[in-house]
Amino acid sequence: MAVKRALISVYDKRGIVELAQGLAALGVEIISTGGTYRTLQAAGVPVREVAEVAGFPEILDGRVKTLQPQIHAGILAIRSNPAHMAQLAEHGVTPIDLVVVNLYPFRETVANPAVTLEEAIEKIDIGGPTMVRAAAKNYQDVGVIVNPDRYADVLAELRATGDLSLRTRFALMLEAFQHTAVYDNAIAGWLATRGREIIAARAAGEAPPAGSGADSPFPQALSLTFTKVQELRYGENPHQLAAFYSDGTAAGTVIARAKQLHGKELSYNNINDAHAALELVKEFTEPAAVAVKHANPCGVAVAPTIAEAYRKAYEADTVSIFGGIVALNRPCDRETAEELSKIFLEIVIAPSFEPDALKVLEKKKNLRLLEIGPIDPNPPAGFDMKRVGGGLLVQSWDAIAEDPAAWKAVTRTAPTAEQLRDLAFAMKVCKHVKSNAIVVAKGGQTLGVGAGQMNRIDAARFAIKQAGANVKGAVLASDAFFPFPDVVEAAGEAGIAAIVQPGGSIRDEESIARADALGIAMVFTGVRHFRH
Amino acid sequence: MAVKRALISVYDKRGIVELAQGLAALGVEIISTGGTYRTLQAAGVPVREVAEVAGFPEILDGRVKTLQPQIHAGILAIRSNPAHMAQLAEHGVTPIDLVVVNLYPFRETVANPAVTLEEAIEKIDIGGPTMVRAAAKNYQDVGVIVNPDRYADVLAELRATGDLSLRTRFALMLEAFQHTAVYDNAIAGWLATRGREIIAARAAGEAPPAGSGADSPFPQALSLTFTKVQELRYGENPHQLAAFYSDGTAAGTVIARAKQLHGKELSYNNINDAHAALELVKEFTEPAAVAVKHANPCGVAVAPTIAEAYRKAYEADTVSIFGGIVALNRPCDRETAEELSKIFLEIVIAPSFEPDALKVLEKKKNLRLLEIGPIDPNPPAGFDMKRVGGGLLVQSWDAIAEDPAAWKAVTRTAPTAEQLRDLAFAMKVCKHVKSNAIVVAKGGQTLGVGAGQMNRIDAARFAIKQAGANVKGAVLASDAFFPFPDVVEAAGEAGIAAIVQPGGSIRDEESIARADALGIAMVFTGVRHFRH
Repeated sequence: MAVKRALISVYDKRGIVELAQGLAALGVEIISTGGTYRTLQAAGVPVREVAEVAGFPEILDGRVKTLQPQIHAGILAIRSNPAHMAQLAEHGVTPIDLVVVNLYPFRETVANPAVTLEEAIEKIDIGGPTMVRAAAKNYQDVGVIVNPDRYADVLAELRATGDLSLRTRFALMLEAFQHTAVYDNAIAGWLATRGREIIAARAAGEAPPAGSGADSPFPQALSLTFTKVQELRYGENPHQLAAFYSDGTAAGTVIARAKQLHGKELSYNNINDAHAALELVKEFTEPAAVAVKHANPCGVAVAPTIAEAYRKAYEADTVSIFGGIVALNRPCDRETAEELSKIFLEIVIAPSFEPDALKVLEKKKNLRLLEIGPIDPNPPAGFDMKRVGGGLLVQSWDAIAEDPAAWKAVTRTAPTAEQLRDLAFAMKVCKHVKSNAIVVAKGGQTLGVGAGQMNRIDAARFAIKQAGANVKGAVLASDAFFPFPDVVEAAGEAGIAAIVQPGGSIRDEESIARADALGIAMVFTGVRHFRH
Repeated sequence: MAVKRALISVYDKRGIVELAQGLAALGVEIISTGGTYRTLQAAGVPVREVAEVAGFPEILDGRVKTLQPQIHAGILAIRSNPAHMAQLAEHGVTPIDLVVVNLYPFRETVANPAVTLEEAIEKIDIGGPTMVRAAAKNYQDVGVIVNPDRYADVLAELRATGDLSLRTRFALMLEAFQHTAVYDNAIAGWLATRGREIIAARAAGEAPPAGSGADSPFPQALSLTFTKVQELRYGENPHQLAAFYSDGTAAGTVIARAKQLHGKELSYNNINDAHAALELVKEFTEPAAVAVKHANPCGVAVAPTIAEAYRKAYEADTVSIFGGIVALNRPCDRETAEELSKIFLEIVIAPSFEPDALKVLEKKKNLRLLEIGPIDPNPPAGFDMKRVGGGLLVQSWDAIAEDPAAWKAVTRTAPTAEQLRDLAFAMKVCKHVKSNAIVVAKGGQTLGVGAGQMNRIDAARFAIKQAGANVKGAVLASDAFFPFPDVVEAAGEAGIAAIVQPGGSIRDEESIARADALGIAMVFTGVRHFRH
């Protein structure tokens, strides 16, 4: 293909004048529309209007502009097909060899929470995606550029060879279909949530049509779009290829928005562990430190200062934290930095790092430092998801607000105020431990974490054993109810003073009776926190 | 809006004649193209061709057919805008009030692995999505139907009110944008993988343009599309909303393709656990049974018959299996069914259920039976994914083929043939246990499974303890290397005869020396199997 005519119509005008000048210098005729036409004309680039080429005016305030057979035939004709070329000649159509189009990002339209449904819909481009898709379909004969970053390479190739190679056209085509897929995904995704709210509010009282999807937060067709943040060296294991994607979240405290200040590139497991640590540390309002290993918290503590919180979290399990990840919910100061630098850690996460703390930690070449800004305690936007073979499980995040003051004491003894504080602390941690999960804690510090067990009593025995002599007078939290009174028995033997669990087993009475017999205070929350 | 003219152009002709007849009876003028036109004409429905309405013929073998300003102005004009209506009059355009279009599913085109790039690209529809998107954009004045399931409701509403309500038009518009998003997602997704392979093979030797994404399996913009299989009662916990989606996988043994023969609806955790059980049982060629609880295998065994394999898997841990999930890789026969029905299980998964086995198991009202057909040992299609706050981790499945014959004995004693069989068995299980994972096994049966520990020695101690007296002469597998020789020591004390682990620690020599001192045979695989 030799490029003789280009159609240019762009929202993002970055580099467009330089491209057009370069094309014009190569003798390429340029046709354009609206704002792009005016920009190019103002820059002195020779340019014709689409309406002139199409022989049909722009109408309906620009809603119909490029939806013209003369334009689309010029894009879609197969150059090697004599019948196609004869039809172009018959209808006075000249082939278009290069299509440069990019779309007004729908995401930006709807980033404004005050946007109305009509405003958002009016922004939806019909002609642009059609030209992009037509040019991409005919990539054997047409180049399509949706990304201004490609202009320089395309111009260079045209200058060097007078042409675009098949490989370049294929890569451009791929990017073009990704562009239109992302565009319609953003529209469908926004309409399915915010748009639905708007229409529901407007037409309140009128029942949504059955099966239309307007009655559920889960659309029939779920289109998700992610933008690559980075390719990773490998996945969970070195033989797995991997990449990290952003869902475009622009607010909130989430791992994808963390800023790396120092250290090696994050690995797949780093990002997963850091996510787990961050979501847990977000649970606390008082200064808190969380150590995570293999996506499970191994040491967690709260204290009046962040340095003290970290010391307590470290002392909770001085072995597992080795090579782990630490998240803080207060700026990392020098005192904390010095404590942190005593052991081998993969990552430290904090809202910010004070300059002298940074100086201390930057001495560790491999330690990754992630700054996450002031903590927003809300869960991530969108849905939680879990991949299974051939499909996807989608759910709202486990983000229920629990009020320990409303928890129900089911035993004769109720927990003391201090015990209730520890129970609330232990339950927050327990929520972030893989099921079955049991957490033993005292004085705002975990003493034992029983994680990922197939049998609840095993998780309890582990947590109790790990707590050692400190278990006397400590509290115990369970992520789900007790099917048998065995956990209460083990807790009583060890000297646990109070227990928190959801309740709801058909054998609750047995557990309560055993707790009463053992002098343990037990409260029910009514809220299960399985995590797998 | 009153519906006076409808444009119909569909690939899926289901119900189209009835819809057109119904519309015609209401006095709606119908215009159409190609195959749909012929279908309606043959059925005696009065219908006009698009070319006649547009005043421009269909050219380029149908590549340019509906891309006409007369058509799109008819769809896009805002009826309440006098200037728009004046322009329609000036150009002789009559409004189109209903657009009925569905697209040839790109996924079906590319489901044939022999499809060429050109064939796939030629199938990409340009005009269809443009009409759908234009009609959806103008939903205030136009109805758009992409789903034949809506015909009956739309006709009923038109008959009853002569009109479509705003709510109906909104729901139809939402479905329309989902349809086009899904369509371009499928194109972009296929091109990014299979299409790239084809072009790479064709243009071998020529380097892909930097940044084009053609050099990576991970596109810059990742568009994923899922179809709702069912809404779930709740998510991991009762306070979480959830739904299950299919990725459209049409082949292979994956949980999303399982057929439920009996029992209550699957829950979120059921599907997740069933996925885990199925992926593990797929590892074995000999008859195998897998019991899973909280996404971790608790009992796994192989044997000459499936009944014997199940008995051994049950005996491996008679406690944790309670309320668990069992997966078999051979048809479930009556003998196995009788064993299975002795305890409370949530799900049984098997390639098939013999009629008398079904009779036995169907007596359990709540037991879910999933038939998965003949086992295809390949991993699921597409990528594994893990959700993190604000983003997504994407990786290839952990599907490396390991050859135990090539594993390297690093100790003076090499494992016997029988031990090597047990090591291979234990490693297959270990790969499916959450990290840190240690599996103790003997005679094709797990004896102890240490799962989800933040400290490797804790996982080992747990697995060894669970194995009890049987541990003497058993083997041990670890999902990752030993950072210290402590696991070897614990194994030696317990009487473990052979160990398999990836190797690769800077302290490997210490572990090897300890194994030699204890008379343990140890082999290195070189392949880590973290799973979080």
